[in-house]
Amino acid sequence: MQIAIKEIADLIKGKIVGDSTLTISALAKIDEAKSGELTFLYLPAYEKFFTNTKASAILVKPEFEKSRNDITYIEVNEPDKAFSSLIIHYFSPSFYLSGVDKTASIDNTAEIGADVALGKNVVVSAGCKIGNNAKIFHNTVLLENVEIGNDALIFQNVSIREGCKLGNKVIVHPGTVIGSDGFGYKQDEKGVYQKIPQIGNVIIEDDVEIGANVTIDRAAIGSTIIKKGVKIDNLVQIAHNVIIDENSVMSAQAGISGSTKIGKNCILAGQVGVVGHIEIADGTILTAQSGVSKSIKKSGFYFGSPAKELKTAKIIEAHSRNLPDYYKRITQLEEEVKRLKEKLNNNS
Amino acid sequence: MQIAIKEIADLIKGKIVGDSTLTISALAKIDEAKSGELTFLYLPAYEKFFTNTKASAILVKPEFEKSRNDITYIEVNEPDKAFSSLIIHYFSPSFYLSGVDKTASIDNTAEIGADVALGKNVVVSAGCKIGNNAKIFHNTVLLENVEIGNDALIFQNVSIREGCKLGNKVIVHPGTVIGSDGFGYKQDEKGVYQKIPQIGNVIIEDDVEIGANVTIDRAAIGSTIIKKGVKIDNLVQIAHNVIIDENSVMSAQAGISGSTKIGKNCILAGQVGVVGHIEIADGTILTAQSGVSKSIKKSGFYFGSPAKELKTAKIIEAHSRNLPDYYKRITQLEEEVKRLKEKLNNNS
Amino acid sequence: MQIAIKEIADLIKGKIVGDSTLTISALAKIDEAKSGELTFLYLPAYEKFFTNTKASAILVKPEFEKSRNDITYIEVNEPDKAFSSLIIHYFSPSFYLSGVDKTASIDNTAEIGADVALGKNVVVSAGCKIGNNAKIFHNTVLLENVEIGNDALIFQNVSIREGCKLGNKVIVHPGTVIGSDGFGYKQDEKGVYQKIPQIGNVIIEDDVEIGANVTIDRAAIGSTIIKKGVKIDNLVQIAHNVIIDENSVMSAQAGISGSTKIGKNCILAGQVGVVGHIEIADGTILTAQSGVSKSIKKSGFYFGSPAKELKTAKIIEAHSRNLPDYYKRITQLEEEVKRLKEKLNNNS
Repeated sequence: MQIAIKEIADLIKGKIVGDSTLTISALAKIDEAKSGELTFLYLPAYEKFFTNTKASAILVKPEFEKSRNDITYIEVNEPDKAFSSLIIHYFSPSFYLSGVDKTASIDNTAEIGADVALGKNVVVSAGCKIGNNAKIFHNTVLLENVEIGNDALIFQNVSIREGCKLGNKVIVHPGTVIGSDGFGYKQDEKGVYQKIPQIGNVIIEDDVEIGANVTIDRAAIGSTIIKKGVKIDNLVQIAHNVIIDENSVMSAQAGISGSTKIGKNCILAGQVGVVGHIEIADGTILTAQSGVSKSIKKSGFYFGSPAKELKTAKIIEAHSRNLPDYYKRITQLEEEVKRLKEKLNNNS
Repeated sequence: MQIAIKEIADLIKGKIVGDSTLTISALAKIDEAKSGELTFLYLPAYEKFFTNTKASAILVKPEFEKSRNDITYIEVNEPDKAFSSLIIHYFSPSFYLSGVDKTASIDNTAEIGADVALGKNVVVSAGCKIGNNAKIFHNTVLLENVEIGNDALIFQNVSIREGCKLGNKVIVHPGTVIGSDGFGYKQDEKGVYQKIPQIGNVIIEDDVEIGANVTIDRAAIGSTIIKKGVKIDNLVQIAHNVIIDENSVMSAQAGISGSTKIGKNCILAGQVGVVGHIEIADGTILTAQSGVSKSIKKSGFYFGSPAKELKTAKIIEAHSRNLPDYYKRITQLEEEVKRLKEKLNNNS
Repeated sequence: MQIAIKEIADLIKGKIVGDSTLTISALAKIDEAKSGELTFLYLPAYEKFFTNTKASAILVKPEFEKSRNDITYIEVNEPDKAFSSLIIHYFSPSFYLSGVDKTASIDNTAEIGADVALGKNVVVSAGCKIGNNAKIFHNTVLLENVEIGNDALIFQNVSIREGCKLGNKVIVHPGTVIGSDGFGYKQDEKGVYQKIPQIGNVIIEDDVEIGANVTIDRAAIGSTIIKKGVKIDNLVQIAHNVIIDENSVMSAQAGISGSTKIGKNCILAGQVGVVGHIEIADGTILTAQSGVSKSIKKSGFYFGSPAKELKTAKIIEAHSRNLPDYYKRITQLEEEVKRLKEKLNNNS
């Protein structure tokens, strides 16, 4: 694959500084790029790699100091986004699955759309509906009445339980479980936990992507709902009756307890936990490992367990680090006050 | 489905206030209920939905102010538990799996009980024993000598390794792994980790329910034991040689390190972590994200990382939030003491 | 199985104190051992079981007080390591999988080494290469061009996506996902997340062991790399472009964000989280639940969220517990200073 650097510069509306006749063989990270390859520079932490990168061309911000002459620059305002556009344009992966494998099991009440691909040992149970052009990889199991939208991409070893509904262009990575029972019990008179049947389902809207080994529980009653455009990373837990509103993202190992509503455009960083029965305002950003125990009504950054506004949390953290000093100062004050009292008593 | 409200009231020993000739078509949450449906009100946070709920009938506590005339009330002391009873009575799901699928693989040394259902591609290895009326869903794999009790319900894509034993009425949700090797190594003279074979197993007693994508490691030697009636939520980690005593519950993403013993009737909230080789007293409640580094000998509520008694943790948290104020007061005290000293020196 | 205690003592270079004609039937933990069995004592917390253990023989340190006469001792400097050696010597499990099952699906462009065992419904896609003597258990799926080294042991229900490469003697436990897409998006002008194709892969070097239900994402571009001898526990998350250097270990539920580099010989305890784009020095030890937000340049113990040097964290923790006392002392100081000021004003 050889791409003219002029074609690349046109595509990302960038300005070439250097050899405009260059051709590019691949895209690579700045610390891994080889001769002939194009890279980019965006985060300051990676500038240290600029001196020695073997890349032949690099996307940089216009103000970047172009101290090397043996490399061709393309100036662009957002080098990271421009680089992503190039990956999307030239390297979008195609997944080699087509047709319905003879080992796939399809109940004869299931409705299968046009151009659907079903891998080996896929199980499509009674009443399922699969949209056009959907791909479902090997060993994935759909129980009864599951619906999958058009252009969905469901990887291998995924489990979707009865009655769950996935929209168009939904992506589900391997090992994920959708529609497992919510964690609901009532204690009997002896304190023994009795299971409350979980008779709801899970609804996943269009353009949602769900990582690997995620768990999304079915509602106790009604639906657990993941709205349009939500992105969920690996090993995330979503409990019964949770609602995650449009365009929110959840990083790996975050967990949301039952019946909580996450607003639109929220960002939950890794290992965040949110208790049940609360609401998180649109646009809230929960930084890593935060633990949220109360509703958040005002958008902004939050941190800590229990979570506080990030600014407040940082101030408290700074003061905490000074505690040994404060302790010394209190002790010294006590001594001085004692001396003052003695002196005053002597004086009077 | 139409159920007379009188039948419902009799079932939960409640008192009808309103139209006792009503019939109910479904159960629903208060904010989602439609006309003809029955809902309930228990948590104060949901009272705001009362004004506009479209439900035709509602379970409430006797003291609840019945301000709407267009809705029928059933008074009952514990509306949430009564509602659960109704779900159990009328809506317990039945799972559509029966018989042994022709793609299931059963070793001819395995013993299969009466009325066992095995889904597609299920693997039952040599020496396995499956109890009467057990259901094992598609693509689940049992390695050698696994035992499954009567009435067990094992969902799809579950992995159970050799020699593990599950009791009667055990439920295992999709993607869960039982009997993986414990995390045990010894460093050789060069500091390289050498694997210690994990030659024990996992024993899961009757009435245990295990969520989705849980991991329970086999013992290094002896058994990892989950006792009668324990309930385990999704993505929980249980390390080798852990013992969890009867009727304890563990919420999602909690993790227990090796050889630790959790007492009876404990509650571990979400994302709790417990170190290895300690004991947690019966009836201990660990609130969300707590990190327990020492044995807990006295039952009660604990919070924080490292975990403290919840009351203590709350007091410290409150003081932490006041640290900026304490800092100001210390600084002011220092100035005042300085002035006092000067004044006293001038006076004398 | 009967093993002469003299053979055992020779093997671990220990000294018998007691009956040197004894034979041993099994190894067991001190609190579970039965007559005829050999146990060991290492952690002080387990000494309480010594009085009542039914074991016939016990490995102890030379200085251990041998107060019971009805038990045979073997003195050895490191009883825990000696015990592990015995497990490895006598009890290493063999896994009962041999040959290629007729339900395994092997693309005819795949290269399969000598003495490979493939379980039921295993999928080996186009371009895959499987090394000699590798065992791959039931329902595991390898997408295109996956390479597996010699003597690899891959358990059931594992998902390995296209292009990932595993070295020799790699062990992967059930339910683990290798090569899922990294969590990478760019927001378009409307703030909607657009997927950045993840076109890299995962490289796992020799002697790596990976637990159950782990997720390791493929690189956005280039490779996510797990180097020689790394050990990864259950439910760990490793994001795209992470590099974990040789001989490091990660306990259960830890998570590493994108592009971070973990040094050699590091230990990450359970539920640790590390942000993206940072570097952790060789030999760093992160204690349980730590949250690391900045590069660590100096090896040592770290704790807390945000993580600090363990010594510092412990000092701050101790001071935090004293906050109620500090508060009292500040308040008392204020009162005393007030009184002093009044007195001084009265005096003057």
